Parts: sequence; C-alpha cells; structure tokens
Amino acid sequence: MKSLGVGLIGTGYMGKCHALAWNAVASVFGDVPRPRLAMLAEASQELAETKARELGFERATGDWRSLVADPAVDVVSITTPNAFHPEMAIAALEAGKHVWCEKPMAVRLTDAERMLAAAHASGKVAALGYNYIQNPLVGLMRRAIEEGRIGTVNHVRIEMDEDFMADPEELFYWKSEATSGHGALDDFGVHALSLLWVLFGGVARVCGHMAKPYVDRPLKNGGRRAVETYDIATTMLELENGASGIICLNRSAWGRKGRIFVQIFGSKGTLVYDQERMNEVQLYVAEGAREEQGFRTILTAPHHPPYDKFLPAPGHGLGFNELKIIECRQLIGRIAGETARLIDFENGIRIERTVDAIARSAHEGRWVEVRRDRVLTG
Amino acid sequence: MKSLGVGLIGTGYMGKCHALAWNAVASVFGDVPRPRLAMLAEASQELAETKARELGFERATGDWRSLVADPAVDVVSITTPNAFHPEMAIAALEAGKHVWCEKPMAVRLTDAERMLAAAHASGKVAALGYNYIQNPLVGLMRRAIEEGRIGTVNHVRIEMDEDFMADPEELFYWKSEATSGHGALDDFGVHALSLLWVLFGGVARVCGHMAKPYVDRPLKNGGRRAVETYDIATTMLELENGASGIICLNRSAWGRKGRIFVQIFGSKGTLVYDQERMNEVQLYVAEGAREEQGFRTILTAPHHPPYDKFLPAPGHGLGFNELKIIECRQLIGRIAGETARLIDFENGIRIERTVDAIARSAHEGRWVEVRRDRVLTG
Amino acid sequence: MKSLGVGLIGTGYMGKCHALAWNAVASVFGDVPRPRLAMLAEASQELAETKARELGFERATGDWRSLVADPAVDVVSITTPNAFHPEMAIAALEAGKHVWCEKPMAVRLTDAERMLAAAHASGKVAALGYNYIQNPLVGLMRRAIEEGRIGTVNHVRIEMDEDFMADPEELFYWKSEATSGHGALDDFGVHALSLLWVLFGGVARVCGHMAKPYVDRPLKNGGRRAVETYDIATTMLELENGASGIICLNRSAWGRKGRIFVQIFGSKGTLVYDQERMNEVQLYVAEGAREEQGFRTILTAPHHPPYDKFLPAPGHGLGFNELKIIECRQLIGRIAGETARLIDFENGIRIERTVDAIARSAHEGRWVEVRRDRVLTG
Amino acid sequence: MKSLGVGLIGTGYMGKCHALAWNAVASVFGDVPRPRLAMLAEASQELAETKARELGFERATGDWRSLVADPAVDVVSITTPNAFHPEMAIAALEAGKHVWCEKPMAVRLTDAERMLAAAHASGKVAALGYNYIQNPLVGLMRRAIEEGRIGTVNHVRIEMDEDFMADPEELFYWKSEATSGHGALDDFGVHALSLLWVLFGGVARVCGHMAKPYVDRPLKNGGRRAVETYDIATTMLELENGASGIICLNRSAWGRKGRIFVQIFGSKGTLVYDQERMNEVQLYVAEGAREEQGFRTILTAPHHPPYDKFLPAPGHGLGFNELKIIECRQLIGRIAGETARLIDFENGIRIERTVDAIARSAHEGRWVEVRRDRVLTG
Repeated sequence: MKSLGVGLIGTGYMGKCHALAWNAVASVFGDVPRPRLAMLAEASQELAETKARELGFERATGDWRSLVADPAVDVVSITTPNAFHPEMAIAALEAGKHVWCEKPMAVRLTDAERMLAAAHASGKVAALGYNYIQNPLVGLMRRAIEEGRIGTVNHVRIEMDEDFMADPEELFYWKSEATSGHGALDDFGVHALSLLWVLFGGVARVCGHMAKPYVDRPLKNGGRRAVETYDIATTMLELENGASGIICLNRSAWGRKGRIFVQIFGSKGTLVYDQERMNEVQLYVAEGAREEQGFRTILTAPHHPPYDKFLPAPGHGLGFNELKIIECRQLIGRIAGETARLIDFENGIRIERTVDAIARSAHEGRWVEVRRDRVLTG
Repeated sequence: MKSLGVGLIGTGYMGKCHALAWNAVASVFGDVPRPRLAMLAEASQELAETKARELGFERATGDWRSLVADPAVDVVSITTPNAFHPEMAIAALEAGKHVWCEKPMAVRLTDAERMLAAAHASGKVAALGYNYIQNPLVGLMRRAIEEGRIGTVNHVRIEMDEDFMADPEELFYWKSEATSGHGALDDFGVHALSLLWVLFGGVARVCGHMAKPYVDRPLKNGGRRAVETYDIATTMLELENGASGIICLNRSAWGRKGRIFVQIFGSKGTLVYDQERMNEVQLYVAEGAREEQGFRTILTAPHHPPYDKFLPAPGHGLGFNELKIIECRQLIGRIAGETARLIDFENGIRIERTVDAIARSAHEGRWVEVRRDRVLTG
Repeated sequence: MKSLGVGLIGTGYMGKCHALAWNAVASVFGDVPRPRLAMLAEASQELAETKARELGFERATGDWRSLVADPAVDVVSITTPNAFHPEMAIAALEAGKHVWCEKPMAVRLTDAERMLAAAHASGKVAALGYNYIQNPLVGLMRRAIEEGRIGTVNHVRIEMDEDFMADPEELFYWKSEATSGHGALDDFGVHALSLLWVLFGGVARVCGHMAKPYVDRPLKNGGRRAVETYDIATTMLELENGASGIICLNRSAWGRKGRIFVQIFGSKGTLVYDQERMNEVQLYVAEGAREEQGFRTILTAPHHPPYDKFLPAPGHGLGFNELKIIECRQLIGRIAGETARLIDFENGIRIERTVDAIARSAHEGRWVEVRRDRVLTG
Repeated sequence: MKSLGVGLIGTGYMGKCHALAWNAVASVFGDVPRPRLAMLAEASQELAETKARELGFERATGDWRSLVADPAVDVVSITTPNAFHPEMAIAALEAGKHVWCEKPMAVRLTDAERMLAAAHASGKVAALGYNYIQNPLVGLMRRAIEEGRIGTVNHVRIEMDEDFMADPEELFYWKSEATSGHGALDDFGVHALSLLWVLFGGVARVCGHMAKPYVDRPLKNGGRRAVETYDIATTMLELENGASGIICLNRSAWGRKGRIFVQIFGSKGTLVYDQERMNEVQLYVAEGAREEQGFRTILTAPHHPPYDKFLPAPGHGLGFNELKIIECRQLIGRIAGETARLIDFENGIRIERTVDAIARSAHEGRWVEVRRDRVLTG
C-alpha cells in the first residue's frame, strides 16, 4: 500500500471531520501508510492557508480546480454544500482522483446519475460519507441479522430527529429554499436510508408524506418569507426483502440533537439502537428462561471490531468523529483493493432514487416504486 | 349521588380489571357512594358463581340477558370479546342501564354506529374502556399542550407494540381469523387513537399500511393455516388541527410488552411518554440557559391529579389496574352529571371511523378522509 | 380459612394503603375469604366516622383501645406514628389479636424488644409493613440469588433517597426532633435493611456515618431551630454470609422521589433494581457470546408471581399500593398457617438491632457488631 | 508558542491514547503549534520501531533513558506500568523535560513525594493523566456547583466499577500481587478521587473498607494462588468543604465496563453523571412549576467547551480518547504559561495521600485524617 496524497475541499463541519480522520487513521489502525495531507481548498486563498495551518495540510488554494488537478493529490475529500458535489466530484474523477464525497450525492437525481457515470468512466473509487454505518454496533446489528439471531426481519422503523430547524423564529436561510432540496428528506434523511441499505439492501416501494411545521420564517431585515422545504418527512416502505417499515425524519424536533432511533423486529427477536447513545445497542432474543427475558443493553467493546483499534477496554466509548476514522480506513482499503464496507456511488444512487421516490410519492399522495435498474449512461 | 348497582359481564383480563375498579373506587376517592357489586354474568351459572365469590359480587348468572334486565343493576360493565359488544351494549341501553363497554366498540363499523344510536336513544351514559388516557401523566401532557407549554404541536408519533403474537410457532387462534377484525389496528391500536383523540381531537386523513409478519401459523392437529389478520399496522395521518403524524402498531414485536411510545413535537418543546414506564413523562422546553436544556424526566406525583388520591408521596408509582379505578371514578361522575374525562360512544365512533379509514386506505393504497359528520339516528 | 375481622388504627399515608389492601385482597387473589372491615380508629370519633365511611369500614371509634378490645376484630393494622407502635401493638397482642404494624417497630430498641416479647407471649401473628420486599421482582432477585444465577454474591450496595426533607427553608417539624429517632436511618432506611434481610439474611458488622445537610430550619413564628436528626446516613457493612456492602440513605436528595437503588454483585453476574422503576429489574450474567453480553431489562410479567393475580399481560405495571395487597395476602396466609414471606417481629428485631448498631457506630466512629442472640424475655 | 518535541514511553492502552492525542491536538484545536512526535521508547528497539511507525513518531529507542536525554524532546509522556513512574518521571524532570505521567503517581506514597520534589526542583510542568476530568460535562458540573446552581453541596457519592477482574477463574496475574498496590483503590479508584478534587477540593477524613471477592485465583500450571490485593474498596469520607460522601470501587463488578457514577446533592438541586454515558449529565433543580420538575438529561453540546472544537452539532458524542486530546491541549497551554485545568504533581499528591489514608483506615478499621500539609522539599 502506498501513502495517499489527500486533497480536502471545504473545512466546515464535515471538512474538519475529514481532516481529523485523515490525520488519525494511520495511528489508530497502524496497518496503513500515513496519508500525506497534501492540499486544502477553501473559498479564498487566505482562508485556505489559515485552515491548512490549523488542520495540518501542506499546501492551500483558493481554487478547488487546482487542487483537483494537482499531481500530489490522489484522493479528494469533498465536503462543500450539496449543490457543489456534482461538479467537484466529476472534475476530480475525470482528473483521475479517487473521491470521498459527503452525502447526499446531489440535490437533483439527474446530477447524481451523472456522478455515478463519471465514477464508472474513471474506474476510480468514489465513496460517500455515510459515517453512521461505520459504528461497530451497526456491524453487530448487521451480523446479528445475517446470522439469523433475531430470525427473519419483518418490520423496521427508523426515526432521525434533530432540532436545528426547530425554532420558528430563527432567520430564514438557505435550508428553507427549494434550491437546497426537499428538506429533511435529503438533508439528513439519507443517513437513515444508508442504515437501511447496509442492514437490509434495497427499498422496493415507498409512500411518503412531507410537512412544514412553520409556513414562514423571519427575514433579517423584517418581514417573513415562506418556507419552501419540508422539515418533516415520513415514509412507509416495503423493502425488497419483503419486510415493511417506516422512516420518520424531523429536523425541527425540539430536544433531539442527533437521534437516529432504529427498531428492527424479527421472528426471534428485536434490535434497538439510538445514535444519541451510540455506544449502546439493545438486543432482545426470545430464548432462555421466560422470567429472565428482556432487552439487554450491550456496550461497545473490543469484541465489536474495529473498536479494539481505538481502545482495549470495553464500554469506554467512541465518539462521532471516530466513526469517520473508521470510514477513512475502509476507503484506504478499498483504494488498495481490499473488500471494504462503504457506500460508493453505485450504492449511493439507490439511496438517491429512494429519496426521489419518497418525494414524488409525497407530492402525489400514493405509493411509488423505487427504480432499481442499473443506470446506463453515455 | 346514589350508590350504583353494578352488573359485570365477563371476567377475563378486563373483566377482573373492572371488578377491581368497582371494588376500590370508593375507598380510593372517598367522595362517591360505594357501588354495590350486584350481579356477575359468565358463560355458565357455575363459572359465574365461582367468579362472583372471588370478585365479591352478590349474585351470579349464566345468562347475561337476565343481568341486563335486573332491577338492581344500574350500570353494566361489558368485558366480553369484541364481537359481543354490540348486542350486549344495545340490550343494556335499551333496558335503561348505563354502559361501560371495553374498547373497541365493535368489529364492524356499522355495529358501532348502531351502538351509538342506541346510546342516543336511551339517554344513558355509554362509556368506553380507554383506560390509558386516565393516566395522570396523560393529563399533564394534555394540560401542557392546551396551555401552549410546547407551543403549537406540529407533529405526533405514537407507537404501540406488544409481543403476544410474536412467536410464529404459536398455535393459530381466533385473533388470526378475519372475523376478529383487522388485527393490530382494532385489536389494540385503538388505544393509540384514544390518546390522539384526548390530546388533539379528530383525525382528518389517513394513509395506512398493514402487514402480516407470518403468513401462516401451526394448527393444533398438524398442518398450518393461513393468517387472515394483520399483526402490523402503520398509518400516516393528518390531524384536524393541522399537525401531521404517524401511528405504528405491532403485536408481534418481540420484547415489547406494553409499549405505547408517544412523541409530541411542538414549536417550543417536545413531550415523550412510554407506557412501559407509565410513571414517567419527558418534557423538553426550549427555554432557560442553553447549556442546561434537556429532556426532563417527570415522575408522577400528587401534583398530577388524581395521583394524590392514591398516594401522598411522589414517585411511588401507580399501576395499570389503578388507571381503571380512575376511569371508574370518571364514569360515576358522568352518571351523576359531573363533567368527566371519558371516551363515550359519541367520541368512540370517531375512533372507529378512523380505524375503518385506515383499513380502507391500507387496502386501497391511498389517502382516505375520515368521516366526521354527526350521526343521525332514528 | 375464615373471614378475618379487620381493625385499622390510623388513616394517613399508610393507613389508607392498609385499607385499600384489605379491601382488594380477596378480589385480586380470589383464594381467601373476603375480610370484614370491622372497625376503624382515629384521633376523634368524628374523624373516625368520616374515614370509616370513605374507606368502607363498618364501625368507627375515637378510642383505639376499644378497637383493640372489640370481639369483631381479629387483626389490627397499626399505621400511626412510630412512637405509638409499642403501646398499640402490645395492647393488641395482649388482647389476642394478630398485628400488622407499620415499620419500623419502635423509636427505641428496648421498646421493639418489648413488642417482640409480647408477640412471643401471645402466640399471635405479629407482622411488619415492609411492603417493598413484596415486589414480584424482589422475588425474582431472591430466586436468582438462591439458585446461584449470579454466582456467589460478594458485594451489595443499596441506596435509598427521597427529597421530602431537601428544602432547607421548609419549616422545622417533628421529623427534625431527636424524639422521632435518628433520622433517615430509622425513618425510612429500614426499608433498605428489609431488602438486605430478605435477600441475604443478617448483617454482622457495621460502620456508619450520619450527617445533617442543614444545621437548622426556620420556625413558623420566625427564628430558626437546630436540627436534631440526621437526614443523611451511610453505612459500610459486612453481612453474615461474608459479603461486604454499603447502605446510603438520604431524605434530602433533591429529585429523588422514591429511589431505592440496589446493586448486587456476584461471581457470575449482577442484579440491579431501582424502586422508581419498580416494574423493571436488570440482570447481567456472564454467559453466552461475549459480544452480546449486557444488562437485560426484565419487565414484570405473569412469570413473576403473584403479578399474574393482578394482570395476565406482561409489562403492564404494578403500583406501590399493590405491593401492600400482596403483603396483605401473605399476612392472611400466615394467620391461616401457610408459609408466608413476611417480616415478623422476630425478623424485624434484627433490623432494629442493625439500626441501633449503625447509629452507635456513627456516634463512636468505629465498627460495631450487630447483636444476633435470641431475645429471652420475661 | 513553540512547537513541542514529544517523547513517548510506553505504547499500551494509555500509550496509544497519548500518541493519538499528541497527533490530533493541533488539528482539533487549531490554536497551538503542531507537536513533533520526536521519539518513542519501548521495551526493545524492534518493538519501538514498529510502534513508532504505526503511531507516527520520527525516531525509536529501546532505552527510555536516551529518550529522556534527547535534546529534541521537550515533554515526556510516561505510560508504563505504575511501578516505573517514579524513576522515569524523576529522570525526565531532572533532564529538564516537562512530564505527562499517567495516574496514579506511584505505588508507594514516598515515591510520589519524591516525584513531587523533583517537579518542584525542576520548575517544569509535571502533569498527571486524569483524563475523565476533561469531559466538557465535568466542566458543566463544576460551573454549576461553583455558581450555586444546586445550592450548597452537602453529599457526594461516586461509584467506579468495571469487570476486568470479575471472573474468579481468570488466571492469577500481577494485579493480584501486593507489589502492584492496594487493588481497586489505587489501580483505578484514583479517577474517582480526581473528580472529587476537581469538583470540590480536598478530602479531610476517610474511613475505608477493602474486600477480596475471591480469595485465590488459578495459576497457569495448575493450583491456585492467594489473591493479595483488594478488588473492592469502599470509603466514607468528609470533604474539607464540610460535605460528606462515599466512594465505592469495584473492579470485579460484572457488567460494568467503565461506569463512574457520580451523584452530587445540594441544597437546591442534584447532579448525576455516568461515565458509561459520558455524553449526558443529569441536572435537577428545585425551581419552576412543581408538576414539571424532574431530572433533565443534558447532552454534550457546543455550549459546553471545548466540545465545539470537535463538533458544531450538539448531541453527536465525544469518545474516551477525545478526552485525552483535551487534556493534551491543557498541558500544552500550561507549558506555554496559560491557566490550565490539569492535575499536576502538586494536586496529585493530595490524591495519593487520600489513597494512603483510605488504605490505612481500612486496615485499622477507623477514621483517618488525610495529610494536607505542603510538602517541604530539598
């Protein structure tokens, strides 16, 4: 394995998260070459230089195209607002770089399809930033399901709630504009869909509903502007594996800070997970003495790889940022030809199409099939 | 207030619960005449006598019609299987008795409408056994909502899950027969709807989905029989007050024993309640120092009437059966002309129509409006 | 079994609780004759009559001695303040009545010893009101321990906390007077000791510490009075079975309403219980796949007798008052010669001596042995 | 601020944790020069080289003395077994290096006193690895206490439990030898004492008890060897500020993986914290409407510095390793002359003396005063 040269575009929430992951991955895992933090791009040269210094990147640029073109860069982390993803990802892939792009792929499905086409054409690794699926306890759930520990899964519920849009008097900003997408559905609901994908595979049919808790929001200079996106989205669904389920999304849910509540019901047991307590998973299995049956709360431990790479003691706790380090390790492995657990553009398009189907079904008030054919572009 | 003569039909799960409530209500509340446990009806005279002795009823009969006709009986508790409710309730009302009938009203909506008509014609109190709404903490939630404590409610989620049908190898019995109703939806889902009703009023539109986790179940003498009811039911909905929401029902949810999980999102805060921890409610209000905001877990206390009638000390806990005692006190009050918090046939029909709409929408795969017109009878 | 005639002295917190239990026990259990609520004694004839009417007692008296002497009374519930227990219990026993006396036995150990002597002399049942031990989940814990489910128990921690004395500005009242006893230790700490007794047997040695969170409290007419009792009591202990442990008591613990937190550590597992969630117990057993080990939360169910006498469905919840009904059934059984799980005066004196030893050890700042000899009186 | 040259001795559990912290601190905080990972020492040159490669250190040595003497090294992380701390720390300080030594200071108090003397003589920063105190929520608790949010604290309980010694059939190893120290008390109990120190200051008096859950353990080649250390330690205590409290330690507590349960009772409220849910703290304040009072669960958020350096979104969760990054930033600040929240040798000796007093009090069965005099060195 050779050391990768890393280019980072964007240094906001997820940009810093990527930087920390690239910086830590070799020390945590000890089995991959230390990446070189080669270049960082930001909106201006000045900001880029400040951030490069803070985050430990060698060079800085105010022009992301020069980063994409730079020979020292092998892989590009794209962490800019969603609207920029297609152009940047396609440019990077066309320049022969691997891409690690934050979710969702794009605001419009057609753009996402173009990104996938570019990935196919390039032959490079094109991965998406679905970090929640990297939690060792998601791995525990996946294995439990695969091994039949809870029998045949017949019903799934996933809720994802935060409260960053909960205050009706917060100023109108771009997240309430239609150009940003549907709202809660694509803004963060794709995380819920990524869990579905990893645990169960594809969604067959959906019937969605979207709602605006607040019809308008105040403008900075007075007056109010109508909200164009949906802070609440709910969908009933049928999975390809035959199970039914529901996904509930709310970004105006006061008090919820990072809740992703997952309930998986099977013929022999149940799994429950809450991202706000990301170091715990609950398992109920209908076995043993009936008077002792109950949900057991399992704390993350070295028995749940790759927790052991972080800590030798159980129950001491991983953090959100550390999931990105795991994802980064998966990406490095994928680039080196290892089998890796990642949502790449090929899988990601399934999530995007599910989003699209949910939005259409919500607008049309009926069930919609999710397209599952392989895209043939160009 | 005069002492009521009580007739009880049925002595199963809810029958005993009614008996305990009638027996305890005067001692607990201290402000109503002690009811006379006048007569008990069961399937046979012998069983009726045994049960009357155990439960403290004066007389016993194997013929419920004689109970309904008995002059010593002022009010009839109907706790038999749902299919018997219409005939018994109508007979009791026609005999001039008050009725306290377990939920749901009937298997078929038309029967429920007939029951309502009989109630109207009789002028008697006709109440339904929706005991969960009597929890003092449901009162706390209702007041919090009414007083705007969490602002304008814009989204509601209610889940109701148990596991009494979770074992796929349990023998086929009547709950899997179509004659028993739709399945989870009317079998116990009406409790979820009763909470919606009490907290928010009517449901305007629904879009449901029902699923069978197990297509067949074993028969006692070998072989398997196809399951005809739906152990899982989910519905998206819009309330008359404009809020959106969802109800998720599952009677094959391993590990869930009596879970009714309620999440109410408003413009200023959130309420969360779990029936399995029925002495706690969680309240989040977006006020005060931000670094101290969080869901607070409120334990039932004398400040939450009528908990104080049971216990002077906070946090010591009420039980499921005690909710029935509260309901019984409400019923006695209603009979005496007091304002009482009860779901009577007039309100109950709204729940039945919602059930009907959900089932139809599930079968037709589309949104269905819930009938809200006043019934014109006679 | 013949029907018992019940006399009740006192109608406060626990008095009402006794009345409700006597009233409900036959209906709940169905296997004992319905007790006759024969007579109720209160401080005045008038109050007694009001309370008798509310609580369903046949006759009333303002003179408890006439109740104790009444031929219709077979068993006397004593629920007056602790200082009255010795006189009343001894009088009742001497009158040939069975006694059900609320905990603790007495303010002074010598009085408790006299009560025990009277019980011995009478040959009647003399039981104490330690209702927490009647929780079906305490039974589950006891069986788990006895059957070695968590191996050999080596360490126990019990905390009991409430906040009824937490406000430093609440007016001085009798609970802060030395004549009421030591404070948290005997006021409610005996409940913790009753759990120790039922689960493990006797305490061998103790080393206590008592503290006053507030040195004085306001008087109604101004000024402040020095607090004479200890709202906080802590003790380290060694059990006769060799395990070590600790008991922590605090009646000025803001936010704790009825917390009794029990942690039992054994060589194969751990049990955890919290009275504020009295329908749950947590069990950890070091068995099975390591990646699945965790504390399981067990909800009370019909598998945990006598929950089944109250409810056929699991997880629906018992309340505090219902523990008293169970205790009442045990008492009736004991009177009829059945084996019953009760703390009688014979066991109760062991708790009183432990209290005495803790208080002495706290005052002397050293370990003290708990007297374990059989009392020989008169 | 100049960039620090880092030397790391030891690469086990805490060694890797230090390495990760030194590697990440500049990227996370963005306000300190990136440390140079100059040299790593391990037991052999070969191991040292492997680990240096994995953890990103420039040079490696099998001789820690050469690391301590190396001019490129400004600060030495000491993460070897406790018995090595004194020699290494003193050597590093005498060589003019700053020291970051894992807790506890030493096995014997006299050695700890020598380490303190060396620190004084050197004038260098000598810090201890008490990472738990760096949790932003510990900061929240500290501020709440200082600002009187829960009034005057009168009682504190801290429990620290893990289960790495819980299996009685695990082979005897050095942690059961007396040369390793007292057992749970100094092995990990010092963490509990570090929280006491940071939140309240010094301990005045203690009365301890230590217990051996298992008298012997199996040897690899058959037979069993008597256990010489105490896996359970409990102590009652009085703080210098007048509050009373208790510390309970158990390293054979099945099911507990990293529990540090803290309960702080004050005259206006209560704080509760559990390290196994390190991103939550519970606060009860006796204010506002009584029917709404309850413990609120506060999730870590950007309002709790320096969480904001890791994540802009609340409730997303920090991990155990990230506390070390915070500690590292504090250390860098202290070296640069900033005020920093750290337990240095000067404070650490107070903890060591408390350990010593607890052990003595346990052996002597009586209360012991904790020495609080200033050490006079040289």
